[in-house]
Amino acid sequence: MAKTQWEDSPSDLLRARAGFDLASIDPHGKPGFDGGKSDGRAALKAESDRLSELQEQLWAESRSGGTRSVLLVLQAMDTAGKGGIVRNVVGAMDPLGVKVTAFKAPTPAERRHDFLWRIRRELPEPGIVGIFDRSHYEDVLIHRVRGLSSPDVIEERYGLIREFEEEVAASGTTIIKVMLHISADEQKARLAERLDRPDKHWKFSLGDLDERVLWPAYQEAYQLAIEHTSTPDAPWFVVPGDRKWYARLTVQQLLIEALGGLDLQWPAADFDVAEAKERLALS
Amino acid sequence: MAKTQWEDSPSDLLRARAGFDLASIDPHGKPGFDGGKSDGRAALKAESDRLSELQEQLWAESRSGGTRSVLLVLQAMDTAGKGGIVRNVVGAMDPLGVKVTAFKAPTPAERRHDFLWRIRRELPEPGIVGIFDRSHYEDVLIHRVRGLSSPDVIEERYGLIREFEEEVAASGTTIIKVMLHISADEQKARLAERLDRPDKHWKFSLGDLDERVLWPAYQEAYQLAIEHTSTPDAPWFVVPGDRKWYARLTVQQLLIEALGGLDLQWPAADFDVAEAKERLALS
Repeated sequence: MAKTQWEDSPSDLLRARAGFDLASIDPHGKPGFDGGKSDGRAALKAESDRLSELQEQLWAESRSGGTRSVLLVLQAMDTAGKGGIVRNVVGAMDPLGVKVTAFKAPTPAERRHDFLWRIRRELPEPGIVGIFDRSHYEDVLIHRVRGLSSPDVIEERYGLIREFEEEVAASGTTIIKVMLHISADEQKARLAERLDRPDKHWKFSLGDLDERVLWPAYQEAYQLAIEHTSTPDAPWFVVPGDRKWYARLTVQQLLIEALGGLDLQWPAADFDVAEAKERLALS
Repeated sequence: MAKTQWEDSPSDLLRARAGFDLASIDPHGKPGFDGGKSDGRAALKAESDRLSELQEQLWAESRSGGTRSVLLVLQAMDTAGKGGIVRNVVGAMDPLGVKVTAFKAPTPAERRHDFLWRIRRELPEPGIVGIFDRSHYEDVLIHRVRGLSSPDVIEERYGLIREFEEEVAASGTTIIKVMLHISADEQKARLAERLDRPDKHWKFSLGDLDERVLWPAYQEAYQLAIEHTSTPDAPWFVVPGDRKWYARLTVQQLLIEALGGLDLQWPAADFDVAEAKERLALS
């Protein structure tokens, strides 16, 4: 990426800290990036090799006994662009080292366990960049908005989530949590586009409109979830999403910063290179 | 892809049929493709959108209750290019709808089960294109060459594999099995390159040289495995691999033909589109 186009690191600018206020964040903004759409798209392309190389180094480390991994949690209102992030940002990495899990409404079997059970099963193995398309946060978001769980239970879950994520981080997983933040107007336009295109109808359901009506309640649920669970070990980043190119570029940068922070190296040979060359020549 | 560059469909040309003879296949060939490296690379790029769209349609179908999936099994000698296929061919599809499983030597826990147990657990869910980087075929390949199982057991496994794959196919999974076929000389050159590059040392182990010495025995094991398990439901394709660009283009084409054969359609709306538009406008 043309580094000069970032005035400040997005991980600094967008991190949810004490006093976090979702309502004050402009979904149409592009904090820290000094450029327009074409700059942003060019930067995304330019940096995808860097992201891919870092991911390969993480994978290589795991082949040599390393146990570290990365987990990107994506949460957002419908149409906010989770799918586009997976396709355009995550898609630049080698599929061998990536695991995407889309969490739907829990099955009856999953409901028989605690809410973190199915999440634990999908945590990334060493060397893997795991992506959660929705996550355990649904249990404090839709559950709060729809009253699927009592306020006491929701409150308790914030603490359980903090403990869980602390444990995951301690086991060697770098956690990044992203809320893609769009405006209600932008959602309206995107839903309208889905309805206009028969090849997009499968992405739509009438339930999306029921959720849309609850917009303010969801914003409040996000505010509470983020302020209760943005920790040094598992920070939340609120990424303005009305401009798709900005959101993609930013999440790419968050991944690059997270992987870059691991100080990854190509593993040194655990064999005698000269001897191996000799044996190969004779074979 | 510039269709005219394919004189014949690779799935016809490369399919292992009765009388299959591995030794007669030239690893440096490019059967059916009338063009060179730059044509091949251009064709790969040109067709990646088509592959990606077909995969999205498979995923879309599964969101509307469809149960079909695709499984690509990759087997090959070391350095034959499995990794490059995953990165360059599979990598063009949306990560959301792709699941790559790299099978290593079985763990002690896996060894307590029959050899297909860990394979079943990784079969693709509906809507997914699953990739096996190595597979249950190791249990009739390295097991035969290294004498890890008796000849009787290996023989029995051919039958168990046929039954297993028939069952998988009947459940809605289109199976494609690919052997990337390289020459011993080409492997030597690729191993030498790995040894010359410190950023590739992690991909190398001295064990690779031990396996290399057993080249003829491996070729024989592949010959037997393929002739015993290439069935209409789960065909083998032997893809010449000395030219990486040809192997990638060909596997891409095999995937496109497999997905194309499913006659996928965008799912029709299961709601009243006009009513939805009206409700959206009022929201």
